[in-house]
Amino acid sequence: MSQKEKFVEELVDQEDDFSAWYNQIVRKAELADYAPVRGCMIIRPYGYALWEHIQSLLDQRFKDTGVMNAYFPLLIPRSFLEKEAEHVEGFAPELAWVTRGGGEELEEPLAIRPTSETIIGHSYSRWVQSYRDLPLLINQWNNVMRWEKRTTLFLRTSEFLWQEGHTAHRTLEEAEERTRMMLEVYRDFAENEAAIPVIPGRKTENEKFAGALRTYSIEALMGDGKALQSATSHNLGQNFAKSFDIQFLDADGERKYCATTSWGLSTRMIGGIIMVHGDPSGLILPPRLAPFQVVIVPIWRKDQDRAVVFEAVERLQKMLKGKVRVKVDDSDNTPGWKYNEWEMRGVPLRLEIGPRDVQNNNVVLVSRLDRSKEFVSIDNLETRLPEKLDEIQKALYQRALEHREKNTHYTEDYEEFKRIIAEKRGFVRVKWAEDSAAEQAIKDETKATIRVIPFDQPEGGVKGKCIYTGKPATCEAIFARAY
Amino acid sequence: MSQKEKFVEELVDQEDDFSAWYNQIVRKAELADYAPVRGCMIIRPYGYALWEHIQSLLDQRFKDTGVMNAYFPLLIPRSFLEKEAEHVEGFAPELAWVTRGGGEELEEPLAIRPTSETIIGHSYSRWVQSYRDLPLLINQWNNVMRWEKRTTLFLRTSEFLWQEGHTAHRTLEEAEERTRMMLEVYRDFAENEAAIPVIPGRKTENEKFAGALRTYSIEALMGDGKALQSATSHNLGQNFAKSFDIQFLDADGERKYCATTSWGLSTRMIGGIIMVHGDPSGLILPPRLAPFQVVIVPIWRKDQDRAVVFEAVERLQKMLKGKVRVKVDDSDNTPGWKYNEWEMRGVPLRLEIGPRDVQNNNVVLVSRLDRSKEFVSIDNLETRLPEKLDEIQKALYQRALEHREKNTHYTEDYEEFKRIIAEKRGFVRVKWAEDSAAEQAIKDETKATIRVIPFDQPEGGVKGKCIYTGKPATCEAIFARAY
Repeated sequence: MSQKEKFVEELVDQEDDFSAWYNQIVRKAELADYAPVRGCMIIRPYGYALWEHIQSLLDQRFKDTGVMNAYFPLLIPRSFLEKEAEHVEGFAPELAWVTRGGGEELEEPLAIRPTSETIIGHSYSRWVQSYRDLPLLINQWNNVMRWEKRTTLFLRTSEFLWQEGHTAHRTLEEAEERTRMMLEVYRDFAENEAAIPVIPGRKTENEKFAGALRTYSIEALMGDGKALQSATSHNLGQNFAKSFDIQFLDADGERKYCATTSWGLSTRMIGGIIMVHGDPSGLILPPRLAPFQVVIVPIWRKDQDRAVVFEAVERLQKMLKGKVRVKVDDSDNTPGWKYNEWEMRGVPLRLEIGPRDVQNNNVVLVSRLDRSKEFVSIDNLETRLPEKLDEIQKALYQRALEHREKNTHYTEDYEEFKRIIAEKRGFVRVKWAEDSAAEQAIKDETKATIRVIPFDQPEGGVKGKCIYTGKPATCEAIFARAY
Repeated sequence: MSQKEKFVEELVDQEDDFSAWYNQIVRKAELADYAPVRGCMIIRPYGYALWEHIQSLLDQRFKDTGVMNAYFPLLIPRSFLEKEAEHVEGFAPELAWVTRGGGEELEEPLAIRPTSETIIGHSYSRWVQSYRDLPLLINQWNNVMRWEKRTTLFLRTSEFLWQEGHTAHRTLEEAEERTRMMLEVYRDFAENEAAIPVIPGRKTENEKFAGALRTYSIEALMGDGKALQSATSHNLGQNFAKSFDIQFLDADGERKYCATTSWGLSTRMIGGIIMVHGDPSGLILPPRLAPFQVVIVPIWRKDQDRAVVFEAVERLQKMLKGKVRVKVDDSDNTPGWKYNEWEMRGVPLRLEIGPRDVQNNNVVLVSRLDRSKEFVSIDNLETRLPEKLDEIQKALYQRALEHREKNTHYTEDYEEFKRIIAEKRGFVRVKWAEDSAAEQAIKDETKATIRVIPFDQPEGGVKGKCIYTGKPATCEAIFARAY
């Protein structure tokens, strides 16, 4: 799409058609594009820069807990996948198979990894000998493939990028602790870097990872009232350790199976950022993750002004280098065009500077969030810009939190529950007695699923009856329609 | 392999069998392991940390030249590969094919990318409209697959990690300039970060990239006198632009084909680091890339000493945090065992500290390079350690340069040439008149190939005759047997 066409083409209204708005903004903002291979995506530089910031902030958090990165092979022998029965059943329909290599038919077909528990389990069984080798704390940043019929950029594509952490422990308790620790890392990241409030909790049996003992997730509410599972952390118990023979000699001289965990966050998170923060003018990127935190738009009419303004812009760039991520739009487009363009692409702050500003030694800052303007002296810019970015970061989080609170409903009546799901969407928090069949029946009737049984439960336990079965409730659960 | 076995197993002598030494050290130092999938490797945390430092130092250099990262799909339709005739011919024998996905046979088989010129060319043809969209400067960090019959960890595996940069330009001159610029980035990286002296130059027609107009590379000499191509940069001319229709509207109103480039460096570089710097005791890692720059070995006998020493070690760790990458070996192994272990794993500096050292407020530094010892006051450590690491970095480069100079031979006599290649190995620099058939004949007879026609040529041109054909020489060329 050329610059001209982009300018002309109007953005779809979020209110009219959220999903059309989403698809349009992903491509218009040059975050990603469909690939010529069915269901795959191209992550363009602007979208990838966002991913790089996600990576670096998450990676540092992993390393702070003692995790190291490694790399395991892309291809997994069929026999490996078949070793864990639930696991292969869960993933079989989505696999892509390599059947020929180097000009020959392969004896055993190789799957492109949909996730790496099996191939990593095989390595761990060789690396772990004694309790002294534990815990084993490894992560990898990689591509995975799950053949999808219906795809949406970032949210569901056949190939996507993610990180998958895999740990092995001496005891089940230690594995459980690590599983919860990594979920907390994701929560902290989502809330403090992506400015997305999330609900951490446990998945039900129906929704857990294929092969896990227990799955935890963080769930976020999107602008249209649908939920997005934003990261998951699995306690795999001894399931994979038994399938792959990951044993160790304990201090008491006995051979025991390890307990293992796995946890992941993917490029899906970018979809969440778009859908939580975006508004009718386009993207709004949280300053901590934005590829450009500030776009400088130089304004001039006469040629002699141009020189004056650009000289000042150069000074600003030097001053801010290494402190704030700055983009200077020095193209030939009009200021108005540039305002629209960078608003649409979600840059948190715009800095306008014209000849009179240079004379007065100030600039105009315009917030992407509410278009509020502020005159700032150039001398104060170095301190004011980071402050202002921090304010926007906090305000974004606050706004998302208010949206979620406004769209979280409570009911004890199933008929009302159905009305809320159909008409209002949002999270619906209900009393619940765990029951897979009841959960499935609700899903069939309303398309809503239990997103999570939140950690945050009423003190002293839940009193009252399950909204669906009428049995004594054992917990509160959060239902929603989900991406 | 358990710790015990590792201690017992002796290192193969480099002099006896360099390739056995290489294979052993890669696994013993826990850099990498063979995967259960034929020809693939697992990069273990210690090896991957090395790769992470390579990535971050190289990535910053790319970005400083205006390059941004992106991500293109893993799978390439067969029809794409067939569009550039030389390209598909070069890569066809090494391809792995996905023929089934989501439970169905695919209509068109998809190759796992051996490199991404074709799929990126397709995108560029859609993204580039006008000369204003140029240059397009994109890089990706990813996995690629080339089915190999004989594999060696890091040097030649079916799957490997690399970066591949792809740029599109308005003119051939600009593409040539970018091709050379990126080669210079690699040279600078290899010499200043990996401490590997390299010879930059042009590849001959026989050795160039399938589909390129011109290929440049940097070539390094390994410890055993064989050469390693350490990175390549290709001027693709308009070959791919024509095959993929990458056209732009120029300022003069005419539609023209772009000129494109591609350039890459892979996990092979790790093999180079091992083979250039390693010695009979194992790895020696250049300080700028080493996962751990200093290993602290606390020494004590009595329990009350242990507390004193560990308290001091903790102070050291705090003092050095964020300044030097430190590993504390607080395991129960003996100091002697730890010395061997970390020497073998190539940590540039060892810091020994015992109760008497604590009393005297000093530590002992031992260089991995020559085992020289130095007593340093704890107060001076913060300044002395980085200095010392810098000295080791420079000394490693110097030592590698001397090795290369000692093993670079000059001859005008083909019989002597053959003797050198067979008996001494090393680089052989000869007068040459470019001739593909002659080059092939020499390869058949001696296994030596032209590694590079170095940029550095005699002033005023080459005088004399080609060593093989006797025709008037046009350049000097460097021959060697290569990995």
